[in-house]
Amino acid sequence: MPLFDVGQVVAALHEARDEWRDSQQRSREPGSREFPSREALAGVVESLKGVLFPMRLGPPELRHDSEDFYVGYTLDAALQSLLTQARLELRYMARHQPRPPEEIDTQAAEAVQSFAAALPGIRRLLDGDVLAAFQGDPAARSVDEVLLCYPGILAMIHHRLAHQLYGLGLPLLARITAELAHGQTGIDIHPGAKIDAGFFIDHGTGVVIGETAVIGKRVRIYQAVTLGAKRFPTDAEGNLQKGLPRHPVVEDDVVIYAGATILGRVTLGRGAVIGGNVWITDDVPAGASVSQASVQNAPPRHRA
Amino acid sequence: MPLFDVGQVVAALHEARDEWRDSQQRSREPGSREFPSREALAGVVESLKGVLFPMRLGPPELRHDSEDFYVGYTLDAALQSLLTQARLELRYMARHQPRPPEEIDTQAAEAVQSFAAALPGIRRLLDGDVLAAFQGDPAARSVDEVLLCYPGILAMIHHRLAHQLYGLGLPLLARITAELAHGQTGIDIHPGAKIDAGFFIDHGTGVVIGETAVIGKRVRIYQAVTLGAKRFPTDAEGNLQKGLPRHPVVEDDVVIYAGATILGRVTLGRGAVIGGNVWITDDVPAGASVSQASVQNAPPRHRA
Amino acid sequence: MPLFDVGQVVAALHEARDEWRDSQQRSREPGSREFPSREALAGVVESLKGVLFPMRLGPPELRHDSEDFYVGYTLDAALQSLLTQARLELRYMARHQPRPPEEIDTQAAEAVQSFAAALPGIRRLLDGDVLAAFQGDPAARSVDEVLLCYPGILAMIHHRLAHQLYGLGLPLLARITAELAHGQTGIDIHPGAKIDAGFFIDHGTGVVIGETAVIGKRVRIYQAVTLGAKRFPTDAEGNLQKGLPRHPVVEDDVVIYAGATILGRVTLGRGAVIGGNVWITDDVPAGASVSQASVQNAPPRHRA
Amino acid sequence: MPLFDVGQVVAALHEARDEWRDSQQRSREPGSREFPSREALAGVVESLKGVLFPMRLGPPELRHDSEDFYVGYTLDAALQSLLTQARLELRYMARHQPRPPEEIDTQAAEAVQSFAAALPGIRRLLDGDVLAAFQGDPAARSVDEVLLCYPGILAMIHHRLAHQLYGLGLPLLARITAELAHGQTGIDIHPGAKIDAGFFIDHGTGVVIGETAVIGKRVRIYQAVTLGAKRFPTDAEGNLQKGLPRHPVVEDDVVIYAGATILGRVTLGRGAVIGGNVWITDDVPAGASVSQASVQNAPPRHRA
Amino acid sequence: MPLFDVGQVVAALHEARDEWRDSQQRSREPGSREFPSREALAGVVESLKGVLFPMRLGPPELRHDSEDFYVGYTLDAALQSLLTQARLELRYMARHQPRPPEEIDTQAAEAVQSFAAALPGIRRLLDGDVLAAFQGDPAARSVDEVLLCYPGILAMIHHRLAHQLYGLGLPLLARITAELAHGQTGIDIHPGAKIDAGFFIDHGTGVVIGETAVIGKRVRIYQAVTLGAKRFPTDAEGNLQKGLPRHPVVEDDVVIYAGATILGRVTLGRGAVIGGNVWITDDVPAGASVSQASVQNAPPRHRA
Amino acid sequence: MPLFDVGQVVAALHEARDEWRDSQQRSREPGSREFPSREALAGVVESLKGVLFPMRLGPPELRHDSEDFYVGYTLDAALQSLLTQARLELRYMARHQPRPPEEIDTQAAEAVQSFAAALPGIRRLLDGDVLAAFQGDPAARSVDEVLLCYPGILAMIHHRLAHQLYGLGLPLLARITAELAHGQTGIDIHPGAKIDAGFFIDHGTGVVIGETAVIGKRVRIYQAVTLGAKRFPTDAEGNLQKGLPRHPVVEDDVVIYAGATILGRVTLGRGAVIGGNVWITDDVPAGASVSQASVQNAPPRHRA
Repeated sequence: MPLFDVGQVVAALHEARDEWRDSQQRSREPGSREFPSREALAGVVESLKGVLFPMRLGPPELRHDSEDFYVGYTLDAALQSLLTQARLELRYMARHQPRPPEEIDTQAAEAVQSFAAALPGIRRLLDGDVLAAFQGDPAARSVDEVLLCYPGILAMIHHRLAHQLYGLGLPLLARITAELAHGQTGIDIHPGAKIDAGFFIDHGTGVVIGETAVIGKRVRIYQAVTLGAKRFPTDAEGNLQKGLPRHPVVEDDVVIYAGATILGRVTLGRGAVIGGNVWITDDVPAGASVSQASVQNAPPRHRA
Repeated sequence: MPLFDVGQVVAALHEARDEWRDSQQRSREPGSREFPSREALAGVVESLKGVLFPMRLGPPELRHDSEDFYVGYTLDAALQSLLTQARLELRYMARHQPRPPEEIDTQAAEAVQSFAAALPGIRRLLDGDVLAAFQGDPAARSVDEVLLCYPGILAMIHHRLAHQLYGLGLPLLARITAELAHGQTGIDIHPGAKIDAGFFIDHGTGVVIGETAVIGKRVRIYQAVTLGAKRFPTDAEGNLQKGLPRHPVVEDDVVIYAGATILGRVTLGRGAVIGGNVWITDDVPAGASVSQASVQNAPPRHRA
Repeated sequence: MPLFDVGQVVAALHEARDEWRDSQQRSREPGSREFPSREALAGVVESLKGVLFPMRLGPPELRHDSEDFYVGYTLDAALQSLLTQARLELRYMARHQPRPPEEIDTQAAEAVQSFAAALPGIRRLLDGDVLAAFQGDPAARSVDEVLLCYPGILAMIHHRLAHQLYGLGLPLLARITAELAHGQTGIDIHPGAKIDAGFFIDHGTGVVIGETAVIGKRVRIYQAVTLGAKRFPTDAEGNLQKGLPRHPVVEDDVVIYAGATILGRVTLGRGAVIGGNVWITDDVPAGASVSQASVQNAPPRHRA
Repeated sequence: MPLFDVGQVVAALHEARDEWRDSQQRSREPGSREFPSREALAGVVESLKGVLFPMRLGPPELRHDSEDFYVGYTLDAALQSLLTQARLELRYMARHQPRPPEEIDTQAAEAVQSFAAALPGIRRLLDGDVLAAFQGDPAARSVDEVLLCYPGILAMIHHRLAHQLYGLGLPLLARITAELAHGQTGIDIHPGAKIDAGFFIDHGTGVVIGETAVIGKRVRIYQAVTLGAKRFPTDAEGNLQKGLPRHPVVEDDVVIYAGATILGRVTLGRGAVIGGNVWITDDVPAGASVSQASVQNAPPRHRA
Repeated sequence: MPLFDVGQVVAALHEARDEWRDSQQRSREPGSREFPSREALAGVVESLKGVLFPMRLGPPELRHDSEDFYVGYTLDAALQSLLTQARLELRYMARHQPRPPEEIDTQAAEAVQSFAAALPGIRRLLDGDVLAAFQGDPAARSVDEVLLCYPGILAMIHHRLAHQLYGLGLPLLARITAELAHGQTGIDIHPGAKIDAGFFIDHGTGVVIGETAVIGKRVRIYQAVTLGAKRFPTDAEGNLQKGLPRHPVVEDDVVIYAGATILGRVTLGRGAVIGGNVWITDDVPAGASVSQASVQNAPPRHRA
Repeated sequence: MPLFDVGQVVAALHEARDEWRDSQQRSREPGSREFPSREALAGVVESLKGVLFPMRLGPPELRHDSEDFYVGYTLDAALQSLLTQARLELRYMARHQPRPPEEIDTQAAEAVQSFAAALPGIRRLLDGDVLAAFQGDPAARSVDEVLLCYPGILAMIHHRLAHQLYGLGLPLLARITAELAHGQTGIDIHPGAKIDAGFFIDHGTGVVIGETAVIGKRVRIYQAVTLGAKRFPTDAEGNLQKGLPRHPVVEDDVVIYAGATILGRVTLGRGAVIGGNVWITDDVPAGASVSQASVQNAPPRHRA
């Protein structure tokens, strides 16, 4: 007698899958999986890191003389792979409203072309992020150390790529790109968040930045800061309404210390300083300094 | 003259190991290591993810036609490997109270048989968790996105497997399974915690759920929520008493916002809403809404 | 017509790199990258874990009889690799003030020799950390479980190695070592922090310990505790002043519960107990017990 | 000045490629390579070995209980991969005479379906080859040793698969399959050769069997035996004529000792025994025994 | 409709396996495969190469200072692995005549102990083979080149290990070891062959040396030389008789040029020189020189 | 008691190594191995195959648009790695006659520069070899099949690279390159052999071509052909004299059938046809046809 009755478990699992597929009105789709691959996208992002910073994040044996060869070859292969993933996402999204395949392929190609064209600008933005980190952290010894060691920079490389994909109509690829950084750094930035130049996240574990957040220039935040939604807007029938602005606007030169929680579509005015662990659900005027004590005079109420 | 006197360091490390082994009253056990392997268990869990969700978490080239073949083969190999690890844990636990090897082998086999039989139920519970996440997050676009991208779902796949192992007398395997998810998601759920259907953790980094916590149906929690112990019960001689209920009971339909800390064997009543960052060490009645301000009227005292 | 005009993106990226290098007054350094490698250091640390705990963190098939052979061989290879990385760091640091290569090589060799000699002491300290965790956590079943499963122990293995490197004039290698643990555990300990024997971090996600923090014997802390700087000291021209003591001193036998934030060069006196989520910017006397409520009577003000 | 002027070599190589492509009247085909992949086919053959002999050539941990699961899953994936390669070969062959893609896809699918249906028969033939080797070699201890150690068996597994592909109109895939065995064993069997049941090659290095050779039942040959063509038939203009029978016919129960060379469309009659190193270009009657000395009486002449 | 009816092929393959197992009177052995693993043995041999020649065939970064550490650690692990394989072979051989498991384990342990003790002697023999190759080949530049590049030396490392295993009652492990070299070099030496010191094979492809061959000191042979059996002795019933001496005896200082074939239990006397391509089935006196022409005067007859 | 006394074997192996080193008058060289690496060179050759034939032997996903990027990047990295190996060989060769390191480095750099400059010419020669194979084999279907499947082409890619290295004073690197092909194809061409354009080896197993062989244009040879030395010239004291011409000269348009052996510095005149298995030690006039029978009239004598 075999030790395990594998056949019986296989049958029961089969039944559980059928229940799920019925409940989701899924056809028993013949053929293979049609969904973007996390592994493939991880490969694309790794390649793009090398493309953006060849001498620092590219292969160790790379020499200046062949930088452009490396960039060209790696970029081409990465874009090809991204194109495949983009098609998979667009086809997946079209599964309920069938469209002609050529239309999807054209859209995918155009999105990847735009993405490629945006890379030099992304490199410039990231250079600014690196400088901001170097200038903002007394422990930083060089810009190279910042680029190679700081989890906040890793998160921003992923975010600036993910935000581009999000804007090009590829939200799933964007999300996967963001989650790859989340898993490695504990920093959770939704790819929809708009983040301007010179952004610096120190330490970073536990940071959460929501989909409709808007962040200005030269903003600095610390670990466990949340830029979240206060409540989810619902329509008359109580269904969640998606896509409405529901996260904070953070203006230029704001500093937010560790553990602060900013909820809802509030505005932190230019140059405001938000102390650690404070809880904010209202606008903060430009230049203001908010600390835990001052908040307690006007305790925010929060109902879910 | 060699650059390093490796021999001297080897001898000093040998001495340090001997001190430790003497202090732990360890024999200089001849033979090899007898302890479950983190790598082996990681392999088992990866296989089980594919077994539970073959078309989404299985190999990319898998087609519907051979789903059951894949599930059967992969499951059989995973259970074999799990059986080996289960024997290692049971032998390790028996190192102070020797038992006949056949008895241990029988116990290991029965545990793995029960574990196998529980898998279809675990798949159904996880389907419910996926649905809960999809319905609870306005940013979610499809159940597939939830399954593939959400760290909270990854943590729950590990937890539902780990909790089963824990209940079958394999706490070390359960712990390793949980820590594998903790390392990837920042979500730390003790395998002993009892979690009912439709559980959703959003963002998740910094969540801690203790060993004797009990969570009802359709509960939703956010990042950095702690369901912890207030103090550790000690007996007359001041020794820690293990296994007593010391973590919260969270009833059905409760929502706990980010950063809230609930400590001790308190009960959050059905449908209660706990605001962000609040600190709770007393029962909360069903249907109540607790926000930071309301708590401050009755500030909890906490002595360690 | 090719799908992507890769050549054009390559040229634009080239231009972006040139701008950056000009702005950083970098020569277009011919030749290859001269910077320590994260991958190489990860390999060194993995080897050293096996060297320190051969029967638990070494290869699974290792037997007692050949422990010293394994330790000697692995240690020698790890030190060689570390020496290569040490030279890279010292050369990199000397890029603005050229020094004779032999001088750098001698310094690197001496640093690695000192590092090797410190390993037996590090093993003894780590044994103490393991014991502290086992005694401090009611859920712990054995010292082996602690060593193999607890993220706090993983973080301390990295820290005790990183702190040694930091003290030997290799801050970049130290930082990379620390970030490797940060990425896996969410525990962010600056390699400069001084931590005495018997230190225990439970759960750990979100812990931040700053560069000049000083921690005594038998201290215990929980997840999301911050030992940070209140503000960065600046000189007359407003430049950040580096290296000044700016993080807390935590004396022997202190306990700090989850989410507590201690900022600035304050002292937590021997045996003090700091409650969860409290915010402290002043000294706490020995033996005191600080909870959230008691703090609120004298709310700390915090201005950045 | 860079050490190597890579750019110049790149340009010169580009020019050399252009010359070749011009000489071959190739368009500068845009897009990517369209040719079967040796690596992909090697993977298919490895999988098929496990499919044919699951408990001997499949994964070591496989158990009898899940043999069919393993076979089903592995076979399905292998056939998928083979289908992809079959399409690549058919498209490549159609590059000069374009055909509708659907027609090619249908042909590829039918070929792979036929191939799949032939596998059980191939297994039976190989069982016979194993038995023949076991019975024919006094050094063989068991059929398992034969299956796992004998290069002649490895060559025959490849050949029986390759011959099937050849017959299904996939000569390139067949050739690659054959060359994979040639590289490992030094046995070079053209996939076109027809080999009946119970064939045994001992030692094998240097064996060459040509495209139109026909081999009967229970034939045994030794290392360095050649069944080759005497001359290549040419047409009136002196062009090679392809596909004509030009290799020997070897009837049932023939034995050919090491180093013998049989050239041209000659027939070795049933039960003939060909001695080592002899050179034969004429028919050999059934039951005859040919040794070096007897041949020398009628020395064959050979003109190319 | 699925593209392939995998299920049907799986069933037909199942049937083919059943036929085979019935024909072999095999129980449908439950449980897993019990046969030595080619991969495992390849790992053992790779390790032993490093153990025998640490600075040349060991890891590239190895330094003299830690040679013994490396040798000890690697040897211990290799012997452990070999012990596992030895048990598998002995159990497999005992499948028809069951023996107590402890008896098998003791036999396996003793065999591996003897094998370990023989390694220093094997190293000395191989040093002699390297010197012989260096002295015998005008193209050799250094003993290091010989050790690293010559296929004949690779074949002899495998053979001297395989011959030891063969003598210790592990013919399957010996055979696998030999076939690993055969596949890489085209040199096929049966592990039973007795080869004395200072043996040199030049080029080597196609060399075959049979099970009962005996080779003296300082013998040199070239590619495609066969030391084979003339015919297989059969008993009264026509069954092959195994184990009888049936291959040549080659005395000290003999040279055999390329392509020569020596068959049967004949003796090549001390210092004989055998010309290329000659065919010998009779004794050759000491000091004789045999070339193709001289042989043709007395053409050997060969009947199978 | 441990199962194996590893320590004792380690000591005995140490002693055996010492004996060898003493016998070779080797210092116990401190530090690490200084010898070219087979693995590193294998990587270089793999890269160069892709550099020479990017769309056929390069990465499967490569597209025409980025061919030059790929070639440039891969070539640069391969030349760097080759430079490292060249230095190792030159230093090794200088171990008995110390030279200034800079001199060695300059020589290595110049050799690699010349090697790089020769690559386009090598590509053109290989194109000619491919065409020759396609035209010479009635079974060949396309030039792509020839390039990807024929072992003779693989051997010639290696040989044309190896011969270049040999001519640049890097005989060890050349030898390793040649042996890599020998192991895969059974074709053993010494890197010193001079082979002109349009060379084709069919089947190939067992071919041996010696160091001083000279081969003209459009020559075709078959398996097991030897172009060897008749005897090794010795000086007055009986020492082997190295480097003297001792292998055949094969003029343009010669064909040599399988198994033929040509020994010594003889010349096969333009257009000669050498039959299978013949044995030749004298010149053959241009246009002659030599078959086994004709040779037997004047049997060559061969004394070693």
